[in-house]
Amino acid sequence: MSARGRLGPFSVNQMTVKQLSLPELVRSCRTLGVEHVGLWREPVREYGVEAAAALMRENALGVSTLCRGGFLTAAEPAARREALADNRRAIEEAATLGTDTLVLVSGGLPQGDRDLPGARARVAEALAELGPYAEGHGVRLAIEPLHPMYAADRCVVSTLEQALDLAAPFPSHQVGVVVDTYHLWWDDRAAEGIARAGREGRLHSFQLADWVTPLPRGVMTGRGQLGDGSVDFGWFAERVARAGCIGPVEVELFNEQLWARDGHEVLTETLQRWHGVLAVPASGPAEAGAADVADVADVAAGGSGSAPLPR
Amino acid sequence: MSARGRLGPFSVNQMTVKQLSLPELVRSCRTLGVEHVGLWREPVREYGVEAAAALMRENALGVSTLCRGGFLTAAEPAARREALADNRRAIEEAATLGTDTLVLVSGGLPQGDRDLPGARARVAEALAELGPYAEGHGVRLAIEPLHPMYAADRCVVSTLEQALDLAAPFPSHQVGVVVDTYHLWWDDRAAEGIARAGREGRLHSFQLADWVTPLPRGVMTGRGQLGDGSVDFGWFAERVARAGCIGPVEVELFNEQLWARDGHEVLTETLQRWHGVLAVPASGPAEAGAADVADVADVAAGGSGSAPLPR
Repeated sequence: MSARGRLGPFSVNQMTVKQLSLPELVRSCRTLGVEHVGLWREPVREYGVEAAAALMRENALGVSTLCRGGFLTAAEPAARREALADNRRAIEEAATLGTDTLVLVSGGLPQGDRDLPGARARVAEALAELGPYAEGHGVRLAIEPLHPMYAADRCVVSTLEQALDLAAPFPSHQVGVVVDTYHLWWDDRAAEGIARAGREGRLHSFQLADWVTPLPRGVMTGRGQLGDGSVDFGWFAERVARAGCIGPVEVELFNEQLWARDGHEVLTETLQRWHGVLAVPASGPAEAGAADVADVADVAAGGSGSAPLPR
Repeated sequence: MSARGRLGPFSVNQMTVKQLSLPELVRSCRTLGVEHVGLWREPVREYGVEAAAALMRENALGVSTLCRGGFLTAAEPAARREALADNRRAIEEAATLGTDTLVLVSGGLPQGDRDLPGARARVAEALAELGPYAEGHGVRLAIEPLHPMYAADRCVVSTLEQALDLAAPFPSHQVGVVVDTYHLWWDDRAAEGIARAGREGRLHSFQLADWVTPLPRGVMTGRGQLGDGSVDFGWFAERVARAGCIGPVEVELFNEQLWARDGHEVLTETLQRWHGVLAVPASGPAEAGAADVADVADVAAGGSGSAPLPR
């Protein structure tokens, strides 16, 4: 069985085709048989959280994740209180939208601060406050390690190991991690982290983007279309499948060139690329835990919009 | 004793003030009492390697490192042969210039290649050919782990741990590592790597640059002036001093704004900043191996150009 056959179905993160309005995105998904989307708070709030939730339900679209909570590194008390309050709102929005996963981007160093371990400790403290609140709403927090190039200004959690260490004090249904190929492809310890995440039941989201160079100024909008860059997606797919991650596999691209094109055309291309980069043969007999993972991709990725929602 | 007091003297990497010609750089160093420079192959070859060596000797300037050999990841046989030949030339140039350290930037993925472990293995093979050749010329190879954002197009060695693992099969007088704050500041395993490098006698060069955001397009020319960014230099200085690195401490900045300014002014500022960011009190009693490290910084950093060369 191919690695893709042991992975979950395709999901498109809203940012990949942010040129589409929410109703346009839904229409495009229905046309292509896409049954899962990852949503972003800002455009969802603009549309209305309840209205967005209804739109998803009416069109049988599953919400794989809500992006994003986090930004939990502020040291100043008022800023910390506001960050925690905002994350509680994000948890409530996730519950309203019917997703079980809120992605957390931890936040960078406060202005003028050079204390990375201190900032990471404040993330840990915030998780202790938010984890039980999330559980109360049926939502899992998923810590996303971001590429080390974002450590100063966006996310002090740079490796999967750090994310798992932060998650460790909490039950896995409260706090887990995101494995995003763009952020982890360079790390020779990623395989170990993915296996650990699987063992601990914390692999809450698997996201794909390719690494292309040169990086743009600010390094935010250069996430490449699948297959255009250096990421070995087959390598990741194998390991994530073995780790037992069967939720939707989300493609999250921030890319000025893609945003400048027709959104439906980009989504069509992204779905084709997804099938291409994940269509690799398994490299050997399934390892422990993999054999009993259902072949869900073939059911859902090309299925009709009226199929029952997987979650 | 401050950490700086247990570190080696200031050295300016030629690229920091690349707007200066080699004679201008020498003049500026003499004026400021700077006794060490790190040189780059391209401008040195343009000036003439023998002539550059004579200029250094006549002005009692020590050459802390030669940057750079490496780019050892080509898979194609002719390209590999040419890379090895070029590295032998770099070793010869280092010997001519009187430096004992050739910095190696390992190289990125070949075009269309996604096999990071394979590329790292080719670096290991090349080291086996180059190590003995370097030893024969009294030169140490120093593997520089570059920030993970360069893994695709510049250097597949992204962590100090990887660099030390690559160096491990060789005697330390053949192969060691570079600790550069710009590349390692984000890594929570850097402390462990620095201590290991010290234990193994492989800490061949300590280089400084600050991390400032936003990163420029291509992420090559955004290395910040010391003190302008997120790097905790005192943290590094403590650990490198404890590890017993007493060679010159090189400042290597690639920065369009600095290059646009008067070179002597930039060098003056850089020396001042160097004193500022390293002037931190030691955080406790000196650890094993640190107490017997000579307080060389005070001798050399402000000394006269006619003092005997430390190496």
